[in-house]
Amino acid sequence: MLLTALEVLGLVAFAASGALAAVRSRLDVFGVVVVGLTTALGGGIIRDVLLGIHPPTTLRTWPYLAVCAATALVVFAFHPQVARLRRGVLLADAIGLGVFATAGTSTALAAGTPVYAACLIGMTTGIGGGAVRDLLLREIPLVLRKEIYAVAALAGAVLVGVGHALKLPPGPVTVVAATAVVAVRVLALWRRWNAPVARDDTAG
Amino acid sequence: MLLTALEVLGLVAFAASGALAAVRSRLDVFGVVVVGLTTALGGGIIRDVLLGIHPPTTLRTWPYLAVCAATALVVFAFHPQVARLRRGVLLADAIGLGVFATAGTSTALAAGTPVYAACLIGMTTGIGGGAVRDLLLREIPLVLRKEIYAVAALAGAVLVGVGHALKLPPGPVTVVAATAVVAVRVLALWRRWNAPVARDDTAG
Amino acid sequence: MLLTALEVLGLVAFAASGALAAVRSRLDVFGVVVVGLTTALGGGIIRDVLLGIHPPTTLRTWPYLAVCAATALVVFAFHPQVARLRRGVLLADAIGLGVFATAGTSTALAAGTPVYAACLIGMTTGIGGGAVRDLLLREIPLVLRKEIYAVAALAGAVLVGVGHALKLPPGPVTVVAATAVVAVRVLALWRRWNAPVARDDTAG
Repeated sequence: MLLTALEVLGLVAFAASGALAAVRSRLDVFGVVVVGLTTALGGGIIRDVLLGIHPPTTLRTWPYLAVCAATALVVFAFHPQVARLRRGVLLADAIGLGVFATAGTSTALAAGTPVYAACLIGMTTGIGGGAVRDLLLREIPLVLRKEIYAVAALAGAVLVGVGHALKLPPGPVTVVAATAVVAVRVLALWRRWNAPVARDDTAG
Repeated sequence: MLLTALEVLGLVAFAASGALAAVRSRLDVFGVVVVGLTTALGGGIIRDVLLGIHPPTTLRTWPYLAVCAATALVVFAFHPQVARLRRGVLLADAIGLGVFATAGTSTALAAGTPVYAACLIGMTTGIGGGAVRDLLLREIPLVLRKEIYAVAALAGAVLVGVGHALKLPPGPVTVVAATAVVAVRVLALWRRWNAPVARDDTAG
Repeated sequence: MLLTALEVLGLVAFAASGALAAVRSRLDVFGVVVVGLTTALGGGIIRDVLLGIHPPTTLRTWPYLAVCAATALVVFAFHPQVARLRRGVLLADAIGLGVFATAGTSTALAAGTPVYAACLIGMTTGIGGGAVRDLLLREIPLVLRKEIYAVAALAGAVLVGVGHALKLPPGPVTVVAATAVVAVRVLALWRRWNAPVARDDTAG
């Protein structure tokens, strides 16, 4: 129940981030909906393709599609207001990242995937949608620029994997791991943590 | 028989559109063939990956590959003439979109996919090849800019799904639905139908 | 044994090429690792998705990931020295292309794929990682600009397919085919072989 609520929150957050980026790229209303849907559903589709679940769960569950499309339309209609809520969008995006990375790991483990592979697939589930969004809109994917993004997702996936190895109950473990991802990501945004960039020895 | 003829026409149309876009990006002859093949075969490969058909049908059927490669080579050799046929290319592209969106839905239904998921997979089959083409050539995918593109594909897929639910014979239903897609798309191009773009409140 | 050594060499080469391209795009250390891993593991993941092997082999084999991540970190730390070794990187990339295209074909044949489809999947395995790397970094994929790249990979895949049809022992055939790919690619780079570009009839 708590997990379902979190998952819907994650879908809404990713749909909003995709729709907002599409509005900024001057796409029309259909383009905004397509990018919003792709961002929200993309990670889950990649996860199901890697796990061999056919057809992908997100394409079989119509409420997912309806929630994401409605979110994108709301963003399109009220985008100046949404843009002013930039902190809220980043927080929701962090929640989505945490929920999808940890729930993706749980889904992979439930499908009988070894722990090591499940963590990688969970991380991919979390960051996949945003990567597709940035490719569609011709931007270098945020995951490549904001280091804490991928590392936070991987940390959450590993926490779920450790909990699975210790035979802890999966529900509470997923909630704790997702919360940890959100906390790391929010701290990174707040403190502007940055990873080193390679020296440019040609510049001097 | 009619459906096979339409399908080959769709392959030729998509291969021509991909090859022409590659010529315009100044790619050499091999790049033109690669983009032509990717555009023509991409939608079917995505469809088979989502449905769990291994290996993808289009990679097992050599006449498909031969037809698409020959089309790309003809475009490369005669591209000034082809470019002058811009209306013909757009019409053929519309035919390809209609055939692949509706035939993709039929393929998904025949594989036992629920109607709702089959329509989404059919739409993806129709628009997938062109999206990959535009990503390879670093353009914002046309499907995001030309709203009637995705909506027309979805409408055709839904028509096939409705026909399936009403237990109508699939062959004629697919032909009617594909024709409807082509008609909508041609009308949209002819009348320059456009969807609204979000207001730019910062331009004030 | 020889094949395993070659495969590790291919992983190292692709990881280095991806990491170096990421350093040039001014990504931070985590982005460099992500692009290095994606380039090295991408082709194998695409191969396993097309063949229906779930979850992909490269996500289940942790030494692969460790070798690729270590390579990317070394490139990040010593990138001015690596950049000076440009010829070495191109040679290693050619070795990776040869190994993955031919080993990918062998993997597909071992999974029961028809020869024709196995050759196409092998070629895709060889060129897939580099294509994803260039898409992430927003460059027109090298495979579209450097014609000998895709043609060399296809030639190696066809050699393995011919050897399979003649019932020759797969190990030596793969080594010979991979060597042929490397030789063609090195000759193409050395002699600056180019394929024709379409005439630009608007330029005069």
